[in-house]
Parts: sequence; structure tokens; C-alpha cells
Amino acid sequence: FYHASTSTTDRCLRIFLKYVRPAFAEMTGSFSYVWVGTLAYAYGGPLWAAIAYGVTLTFLVATFAGISGSHINPAITLGVIIAGECELLQGFVYVLAQLVGGIIGAGLAQMSLTAAENNGTTLYDLSNRGVVRLPNGMGDLIGVVIVATMTCLLVLTFIMTAIEQGTPISSVAIGFAVFGVTMAGNGLITNPAQEFGTAVVANLWSDQWIFWVGPLLGALAAGALYRFIFASSDKRLFLKDKYQ
Amino acid sequence: FYHASTSTTDRCLRIFLKYVRPAFAEMTGSFSYVWVGTLAYAYGGPLWAAIAYGVTLTFLVATFAGISGSHINPAITLGVIIAGECELLQGFVYVLAQLVGGIIGAGLAQMSLTAAENNGTTLYDLSNRGVVRLPNGMGDLIGVVIVATMTCLLVLTFIMTAIEQGTPISSVAIGFAVFGVTMAGNGLITNPAQEFGTAVVANLWSDQWIFWVGPLLGALAAGALYRFIFASSDKRLFLKDKYQ
Amino acid sequence: FYHASTSTTDRCLRIFLKYVRPAFAEMTGSFSYVWVGTLAYAYGGPLWAAIAYGVTLTFLVATFAGISGSHINPAITLGVIIAGECELLQGFVYVLAQLVGGIIGAGLAQMSLTAAENNGTTLYDLSNRGVVRLPNGMGDLIGVVIVATMTCLLVLTFIMTAIEQGTPISSVAIGFAVFGVTMAGNGLITNPAQEFGTAVVANLWSDQWIFWVGPLLGALAAGALYRFIFASSDKRLFLKDKYQ
Amino acid sequence: FYHASTSTTDRCLRIFLKYVRPAFAEMTGSFSYVWVGTLAYAYGGPLWAAIAYGVTLTFLVATFAGISGSHINPAITLGVIIAGECELLQGFVYVLAQLVGGIIGAGLAQMSLTAAENNGTTLYDLSNRGVVRLPNGMGDLIGVVIVATMTCLLVLTFIMTAIEQGTPISSVAIGFAVFGVTMAGNGLITNPAQEFGTAVVANLWSDQWIFWVGPLLGALAAGALYRFIFASSDKRLFLKDKYQ
Repeated sequence: FYHASTSTTDRCLRIFLKYVRPAFAEMTGSFSYVWVGTLAYAYGGPLWAAIAYGVTLTFLVATFAGISGSHINPAITLGVIIAGECELLQGFVYVLAQLVGGIIGAGLAQMSLTAAENNGTTLYDLSNRGVVRLPNGMGDLIGVVIVATMTCLLVLTFIMTAIEQGTPISSVAIGFAVFGVTMAGNGLITNPAQEFGTAVVANLWSDQWIFWVGPLLGALAAGALYRFIFASSDKRLFLKDKYQ
Repeated sequence: FYHASTSTTDRCLRIFLKYVRPAFAEMTGSFSYVWVGTLAYAYGGPLWAAIAYGVTLTFLVATFAGISGSHINPAITLGVIIAGECELLQGFVYVLAQLVGGIIGAGLAQMSLTAAENNGTTLYDLSNRGVVRLPNGMGDLIGVVIVATMTCLLVLTFIMTAIEQGTPISSVAIGFAVFGVTMAGNGLITNPAQEFGTAVVANLWSDQWIFWVGPLLGALAAGALYRFIFASSDKRLFLKDKYQ
Repeated sequence: FYHASTSTTDRCLRIFLKYVRPAFAEMTGSFSYVWVGTLAYAYGGPLWAAIAYGVTLTFLVATFAGISGSHINPAITLGVIIAGECELLQGFVYVLAQLVGGIIGAGLAQMSLTAAENNGTTLYDLSNRGVVRLPNGMGDLIGVVIVATMTCLLVLTFIMTAIEQGTPISSVAIGFAVFGVTMAGNGLITNPAQEFGTAVVANLWSDQWIFWVGPLLGALAAGALYRFIFASSDKRLFLKDKYQ
Repeated sequence: FYHASTSTTDRCLRIFLKYVRPAFAEMTGSFSYVWVGTLAYAYGGPLWAAIAYGVTLTFLVATFAGISGSHINPAITLGVIIAGECELLQGFVYVLAQLVGGIIGAGLAQMSLTAAENNGTTLYDLSNRGVVRLPNGMGDLIGVVIVATMTCLLVLTFIMTAIEQGTPISSVAIGFAVFGVTMAGNGLITNPAQEFGTAVVANLWSDQWIFWVGPLLGALAAGALYRFIFASSDKRLFLKDKYQ
């Protein structure tokens, strides 16, 4: 039996390592991702934003992989939960941290974009205050399908490289996944924490639901593809190997 | 002797692991490749499409390497068959899956491109409905030579890094190969599944044969270079080492 | 007991390996970084400069990692000192070498930029003689916050990947970190050695302090985040594991 | 004692593995590098050419590292000879193969560029027939210094990552080195085989010597930096460790 005091320290340490420290990683990562992505879009448009998401997610995954797994994105957290590699409570803490990080990132991006003026209009207003919306003429359903497809490929890449295979360059693969799908989506995004954070700061809520429903559907699809088809036998939900 | 039922399960599992699961990987990969590439070309032109192919092939190879080898492209499958690392029947299944994936990818790309209008003309029509063709003034023979050269370098990189040497960053090398050769080809493509998929969706068949003959000739050339020159002794067809 | 002469050789070798050789690495690296970055900005603007910083820092870290750790940047040296992986005296030598390298890099960049004329004005003058300054309308405080945030993320990535986790692709992660944050900063920089080197060559000192205070504050923040939260138990300043 | 016939086979195999096969790798690599680089410059200008060189050298080093070391460039071969990792005769064969590859690459690039016409002028003529020259107003001496600096950094990166440290991502580091320095050189090149190949095909010889003298001086400088400062004790020419 430990002394009570020791036991308290143990519990603190456990909570710190399992919840507090990972939450800081997710918050810092989400902050960075939203900050860089929002500004790159405003300065360079959707194709440069794709580059920005790609390189930023790469360095964030490399930096925080050993701390929190570096999800950065609520959709990835959902996918990892479905893959059986994240507890529900932990996932809940991660998502909260991601949302807080997204708000801070959006706030700092606003600070830069209001400082840059162009003929009396700030870049902040010119870029719809950093809030991503569907392009004119695109129906909501099509928007959801595109965002879900983008996110499905990102989450599947995350699960297969960072978790299933432990690929040494998983950070590059995951970064390049968001890079590629953002080019396909022409600037539409896969990260609800980004849409939420920018919306809170800008107080603009149109299309908000699309960037929640789309990513979460995509994560569900990626989780299902993994569990039914691509997982190795111990994680696959049917046709298990007899001798493992 | 196993019970009949057990034996059936075994056969199912074998077929699942050898044909069904890899086919899903090839279909998903081919879908993603065609979807991202077609859209990136429409949004950004040939140089941005080169980036898109590069990052997308990188993340797909990293994601599906352990499932199907991640060929994504019928020309690569042909090259791997010549290299002696894929059975004919399996290769046939892969190519079918790639073609199906290409059609789905082209269909989803069409959905995005018809939604974006520009002065009454959709981006879909402005980008020749996503179907790649030779530039004006380029003869068919020159086109075939260029596409064959592009594909030869891609397939040779695939064989040498993913199979021959097992390079840890083979996914990046393969992605960068298609990246580089697409810059040289100024948007011409190495993947018959892409040309086929977009042609089915658009019902435009001009130049279709060029993007079959070119890539397959390129794969033949890459396979020959490997088997006669670059393979290690056990795969090389002449001048074998005595003691291996 | 060694002979005196042997002992002198030993001391020489020790000084060479601990101070002289690393200083050459830092000087060469800093020279390259400033040279490439300043020219890429002048030729392509802030987004291409972001690419340039990214690829250059990647190859420099890969090249000099085994010699000096490849800090290249006084802010990174400060962060590594706080992380407990660089002695004060060694860090001082590194920073001196970085400043000298920065001046040489800025001088060589000037040589290229004065050779390229455009309607009677050299590219050197058009690019503010290579000296980075805050954009019009941005207050000093906001500038410091942005530069500090950029640098904090870069230094944190350096510490976590190159030191804490020894990630095999730490060079790519660190390069992509400066790539991403430079996109967010739209060309603002994280490296005091660059600002100092270009200012010496151009004799332009406005905003000089911002690119010292910002990076050093960012390095302090990154070091604190590491020491209090992200470090493993032996480096963490509180809540240590009992059994390590 | 072997039989004469066996001994002949042995000699053939030795020559094949030491000279013939590496020469094919260097020729194929040099062909690819010149082909992609020349076309990317013509289609996208110097900054896109920098990207093209970067990704192409990366995949070529990954593909041919195990065959010839993948020098691709006479300057790198010279640097590796100075570093003591390539015999003179072998290096001579490499350079011959690189020059032949450069001519073929330039010829194939010409084929593409004459096919693309723009108001009666082919892209071939618009891009100075693919032959790189100094920009107007830049003196020869400055040109040589810039090209030598570019090449020195490339060769030093090659020696330090591919040879000295055996970095697992040496191919990416080397590719990113040529990527970065080409941005600094705004399209000036480090590879005499490229300048020679394009000049043979275009019959344009102005500035030819600059792209031989510059790269070879750069390789000498890199070799000297390695041998006197950055090499580990067994390769370093002074201040050796006593116990190795």
C-alpha cells in the first residue's frame, strides 16, 4: 500500500499524462493548423492553402505524435475511436482542446488580417473573415459529399499509416493527404475545429453544419472501411484469421 | 483434415486477403488519384496538377502499401508483373478495380466541376470534361513517346524503391516521380485508369488509345530495364552471380 | 599520464570537435539559409520564400545534424539551451557563427540582386535591400506577437523531433515548420541572424529589434512549453515519474 | 583455380556491376533530370524549375542509390571522388554516361518544345532552346561565384547525407538542396551535363564554360570543406582521433 500522498501524486501524474498533456498538444496543434491555414488561404487562395495544410499537419504530427497521437481534428479523433485506439472520454477531452485551439488560432489570424488593408477593406473581410463556405452555386448535399470524401481519405490515411502500419513517415503521408484532398476540394476543409473556431471569432455561422456533418460522415466511412476491410485480423470485424 | 466448414472459411479468408481486400485498396486508391488529379488540373492547370499527383500518390502508397502494394495504375501493375512480383490473375483483378475506381473518381470530379460556373460555362466544359488530350500541334507519335517516357520513369521508380530495395521512403520517391514527369509532360498523364474513367463519364474518346499505348509501352520498357540491367542477381535475366 | 604534446593534441581535437567544427556548420548553414531565403523572397514573394525556407532548412538539418545539431537560428539555439541540450558557452559560439554566416549570405544575395535591374531600379532596392520589415499598418506589438508565435512553433518542433523523440525525419518536420509559419507570417521571419545579416549589408535598421525580441520570446515560450508540459519525465520540471 | 570460361564470366560480371550497370543508371538519371528540368523551366519559369529539379533528383537518388550512388551530375561525381568514395576510372565512366544522358534528355525536351507553338514562335525558341545562360547585366565572374556556391551546397549535402551519415532520407535532403539553391540562383543550374546536353542539341555554346567552371569549383570547395572540417576522423585530413 502506498501512502496517501504518494497515491495522490500518482493519480495526478496519470491524469497529467493521459488527459492534460495530450490536451495541450491537441490545443497547440489545432491552434497552429487553423492559424496557418486561415492565413495561407487569405494570402494565397485555395491551392496555397492546400500546401499550408499539408506542411503544417506534417510537422504537427511529427511533433506531437508521441504526446497525443496528434489528431488535431475532431474527425480524426472520431476515426481513431472507431478504430479502437482512443477511449471515449479521452476523445472527448481531445475534441474540447481542439475547439479551444481553433478559436485561439482564428483569433490570432484575425489580428493579422485586420492589420492588412487593401483600398479601405481589410483582408479579413475580403476572405469572409476566414470562415470557409461552399462556393456559389454548389448545393448543400454536394458540399457534404465532397467534404465527407475529403475527410474519409484523410482519416483512412491517418489510421492506416499512424496506427495500423506505424509507417516511419506517417507524418508526411498524413500531411500530404490533407494537401491532396484540399486541392480536390478547392479550399473546402476537413476540420470542424477550424470552421468552429473561425465562426466563433467572426460570428458567421452559415454553412457551419456542413463542416461538421461532412467530416464526421467521412470519419465514419473511414472507420468502417478500416474495420470491415483494411484492418489486420485482430481489429477486423469479420473473417478473422484462425491462428494469430 | 479440417472440417468442410473450416476449410470453406479458410478459402474465403484466402480469397479475401489475396483478391477482395487488395481490389478495394486499388479501387479506393484509383478513385482518389483520379478525383484529386482531375480537379487540381481544372482548378490550377498542369503544374498544380503535377503537385496534386505527387502528394496524392505519396499518401496512397503509404496507406495501401501493406494491402495491395498500392499500384493505383494499370501500367504499374504491368511493370510489377514483368518484375515477377504479381501473378497474372491478381494483376487482372487489380486493373479491373483501378478502372472502376477511375470511373467513380471521374464521376465525383464531374459533380464538383459542373457546380462551379464561370460566365455560363461550367468548369467541367472548360477543362475538356476532365479528359486529358494531346496539346494542339503535337503529333500522335510524339505524344506516345512522351507518355511512354513519363510512365517508364514512374514504373522504374516504383519497382526499384518499393520492390527491389524496399526504401523506407518509397512512397515519397514514387510520388515525386509522378510529380516530376507530369511537369515534363505539362499535364499529360501516365495512368490509363484515369483516361478511361474520365472518358466513360464524359463520353469523350479522342486520344484514349494514346494513354493506353504510351503507359503500357513505358511499363514494358521499365520492366525490361529492370530485368536486364538494374535487378539484383536473382531477378536479373542474364549474368547471374555464381554464389547468391 | 600523457605526454604534454599528446595532451595538447587532445585539447586541440576537443576544441575542434566541440567549438570550431560546429561553428563552421552553423556559419555555412546560416549563410545558406539567409542567401536562399532573401533571394527567393526577392524573386517570388512571401509564399515562394516560405517554400525556400522549408526546403533549405530541411537539407541543412539533414546535412549538419551530426556536426552541430544544425540550429542555424539564434532562437533555436536559445530553445535548445533551455531544453538542457546545449551549454551556454557553446551556444554563444553558435550564435556568433550564425551572425557571421548571415552577413556573408546577405552579402552574396546583394551581389545577385544588384546585378538584376528592372527599369533602372535594381531588384535589391525593390526588395527593401533584402531586409524584412513589418507590413504597412501593422503595429509593433502585433508584429512581435506574430513573429514570437511563428518562432515558438518552429523551436518546439525542433526540440520535440530532433531532440526529444529523435524522429528519423526530423529534418523534414523542422523544414516544414518554418515553411508553414512563414506562410502564416506572409514573409515575416523567425531568424534574427537573417535580419541582422541583411541589415548590416544594407545598413537599414528599422524593425531590427522586432526580429530579435519576437524570436527570442518565441524560443522562451517553446522552451517553457517543453520543460513544463511536453518533456519526458527526466527533463520535465514537475510531476516526475517515480520510477524511471 | 577457376576454369578459364568461369573466370571470363566473373570478369564480365565484375565489369557489368562496376561500370556498365552504374553507367546505365547515371545515363537514365541524367536523361531524366535534364528532360524534366528543361521542360519545367520552359513551361513554368525558374521557380517551378526549382521544384522540378528537387522532386526529380529526390526520386532519382532513391531509385539508383543502390546501383551507382546516383550522382547524375559531374560535379557530384568530382565531389565524391575528392571524398574518397569513387575511383577515378569509375568517375570518368560516370561522367561520360551523364553527358550522353544529358544529350538524350535535351533532345527529347526539344521534341516537346518544338511541338508547342505560340503565335508562330515555338516554346523551344522562346526558352533559348533550353540552354541556360546568365541573365542580362550579370557579369561572368558573379555568375561563376553564384553557380559555384549553389553547387558547393548541393555537393556538400550529397556527401554528408548519402555518404558520411547514410541518412535514411538522404534522397529528400539532396533533392531539397538542389531545390533551394535553384531558387537562389533563379534558374541557374549546377549540372554541367545539362548545359552540355542542351548546348549540343541546340548548338548554342555561349556561357557553356560558366556551367563547367562554376560547378567544378563548387565541388572542389565542398570536397575541401568535407576533407578538412566536416569529415569524421578516418576521412579528415588533419587532427585525427587517436583511438578510432
